[in-house]
Amino acid sequence: MPFQRTITFTTDFGLTEHYVGTMKGVIYSINPLAKIVDITNAVQSFDVLDGAIAISQAYNYFPKDTVHMVVVDPGVGGPRRPILAHVGQYIFLAPDNGVLSLVLEREERVTVRHITTEHYFHQPISNTFHGRDIFAPVAAYLSKGVDSAKFGEEINDYVRFAAPKPKSAGANTWKAVVLKSDKFGNLITNITAKDIPQLFESTAAPFKITVGKGEVSKLCSSYSEGAQGELVAVIGSTGFLEIATNKGPASRLAGADKGSEVSITIAG
Amino acid sequence: MPFQRTITFTTDFGLTEHYVGTMKGVIYSINPLAKIVDITNAVQSFDVLDGAIAISQAYNYFPKDTVHMVVVDPGVGGPRRPILAHVGQYIFLAPDNGVLSLVLEREERVTVRHITTEHYFHQPISNTFHGRDIFAPVAAYLSKGVDSAKFGEEINDYVRFAAPKPKSAGANTWKAVVLKSDKFGNLITNITAKDIPQLFESTAAPFKITVGKGEVSKLCSSYSEGAQGELVAVIGSTGFLEIATNKGPASRLAGADKGSEVSITIAG
Amino acid sequence: MPFQRTITFTTDFGLTEHYVGTMKGVIYSINPLAKIVDITNAVQSFDVLDGAIAISQAYNYFPKDTVHMVVVDPGVGGPRRPILAHVGQYIFLAPDNGVLSLVLEREERVTVRHITTEHYFHQPISNTFHGRDIFAPVAAYLSKGVDSAKFGEEINDYVRFAAPKPKSAGANTWKAVVLKSDKFGNLITNITAKDIPQLFESTAAPFKITVGKGEVSKLCSSYSEGAQGELVAVIGSTGFLEIATNKGPASRLAGADKGSEVSITIAG
Repeated sequence: MPFQRTITFTTDFGLTEHYVGTMKGVIYSINPLAKIVDITNAVQSFDVLDGAIAISQAYNYFPKDTVHMVVVDPGVGGPRRPILAHVGQYIFLAPDNGVLSLVLEREERVTVRHITTEHYFHQPISNTFHGRDIFAPVAAYLSKGVDSAKFGEEINDYVRFAAPKPKSAGANTWKAVVLKSDKFGNLITNITAKDIPQLFESTAAPFKITVGKGEVSKLCSSYSEGAQGELVAVIGSTGFLEIATNKGPASRLAGADKGSEVSITIAG
Repeated sequence: MPFQRTITFTTDFGLTEHYVGTMKGVIYSINPLAKIVDITNAVQSFDVLDGAIAISQAYNYFPKDTVHMVVVDPGVGGPRRPILAHVGQYIFLAPDNGVLSLVLEREERVTVRHITTEHYFHQPISNTFHGRDIFAPVAAYLSKGVDSAKFGEEINDYVRFAAPKPKSAGANTWKAVVLKSDKFGNLITNITAKDIPQLFESTAAPFKITVGKGEVSKLCSSYSEGAQGELVAVIGSTGFLEIATNKGPASRLAGADKGSEVSITIAG
Repeated sequence: MPFQRTITFTTDFGLTEHYVGTMKGVIYSINPLAKIVDITNAVQSFDVLDGAIAISQAYNYFPKDTVHMVVVDPGVGGPRRPILAHVGQYIFLAPDNGVLSLVLEREERVTVRHITTEHYFHQPISNTFHGRDIFAPVAAYLSKGVDSAKFGEEINDYVRFAAPKPKSAGANTWKAVVLKSDKFGNLITNITAKDIPQLFESTAAPFKITVGKGEVSKLCSSYSEGAQGELVAVIGSTGFLEIATNKGPASRLAGADKGSEVSITIAG
């Protein structure tokens, strides 16, 4: 079998239309042996941060040299550039709108190129679906081993935003935010052990977390440790603190959702 | 590797049950090397036109000889026939209910067969799931290279409906319709450059499009050209005029949805 | 090509987050040639019975030796064990919470092991995502042909629950239940020909089924046999009696859903 890089999809194209399927058709037309994996195609519409979170939690579980396509692209057809980025041991294809910011935070080796070589594109190029006409064909050629340098020149002024971090709000008090409420209703906050180490210590002092109308004062090691109907804090699988409840949606219990403020106070 | 045709799925079976997975199990049991791609399995339940739109927008981005399964089949188990159609350079499997009409509109070479050769079916044949018992196994054998003629006799009286087209409604006025509201809330109309060419000219006269409670008088070349909260018209990636708005659902802004009437008036 | 077992996914991880994609990344990192098929990833959150139903309806349509991962796992990180079960001609990976009960009902040859061999796991092991850290890597090694005995010791005290069966409620009367309302709004009951054979006979006596506010007295052989707006009974593709209506959601018509009681009376 010839050289193959795996291709992944992280997009907001959804599952109710033909968009994702059409992109795969373009890829298989160029590389019949392509291996394609969906990370998720249900990123919230137009929501670059939601896409940035999804890819940052998944990318490094894939084989070295995987081509990660991240197409959350509200500016499609406008001046924003399509980019090809080597980050760590992976290749990313994305619009230059910051959707790779959370990946860039975690990696040191970074080379970014502006994709400009039109003969790799699907013609004619629409102004509303570069997923099909630019990103999919470029991914297909990359998966066959075409060298990155062929797609365009290196750039350094790519867009990058800072991920929202918890902020100190006085002695032993922090303000954080719910990054997303997942399919189970777990409220995934932006709090990691790096941000508030004293919260994660095995000998942690008593604490109180409030989110929405919910209050949490118990750190559990698994979802099922909490009583039914009780809100607890759990260190999630990607390192973020989650507000959860045993066999139910914490989001409903707390009346909170993506974007809700989270307050943390640790006994002094 | 032996001869392989790619198989695609366009169905209304949804993602919340085992239906699509079971069909794939049937295919892999017959052809372990099958390559299967989902176009979409979230066609609106029982909605033959919605399925017809989905497949017509995606089919020709796939490799020559792809076997497109289009199973939107409210008449399953009744008198409607299962058909195998060679259309252009593709093979389609579908119930004979018109779901291929929009594909047939775009292609000239057409041969349709009534699938009757039961020894290719999965036994026993249920009356409620021909996707599993007829279409999946036939797709699997086709993917391995079995000749189409083996599945049944040619027919000419297959069902075909006319796609809804914009209609003239007086001097410089047309009535059209919203074919669907996509995942982003873009309102995809049935208007193409062929129907109202003067609307698409670079030197077009002023126009007014009304849909729901929304009014549009600006043709943009991309979604992001409009102001936030402004409804604009954009030529979509499959040639249909879309009513859209920058980073938001036009459907909500216009209070319109699939089936809503669209009025177009061009200054005379 | 080396020996390969197909891997399937039946989970409640949903499609809106990275969870399922990440698990596939783990699998491809271990076995680049893995063949993965989704049965469904939209099992109702935390609902072990819903997962048990999904896998029981699909598993035996797959090739012999398929590795079926069934991860509906509200007890993740707690004392429940991860198990590897040889059942009939398939291999199942699941938490030991009864999610395989409906499969076990249908098969005679059963060997169950407690998965304990940590060097096959993805390190570090989170307490909230054993799908990624235990089940996915074990599935990947199994797909490459690693022997089941290497993953842990045989056990006999695995969890198993009885599927809900229709109960006699007096002469010619039974009480049953709606197992689920599917994507089409078909109400899938727990009634099979084994439970109430007289209902399924071709010379059946008149009967009345009530569910929610709906009444059914007609057994049809296909959905399309009923009149529009009429509730009918149909023998579904997996042997369960379904309450359905022609081209519409019976669930809405009957005002019934998963868990609704079903009463059956046959004329004496």
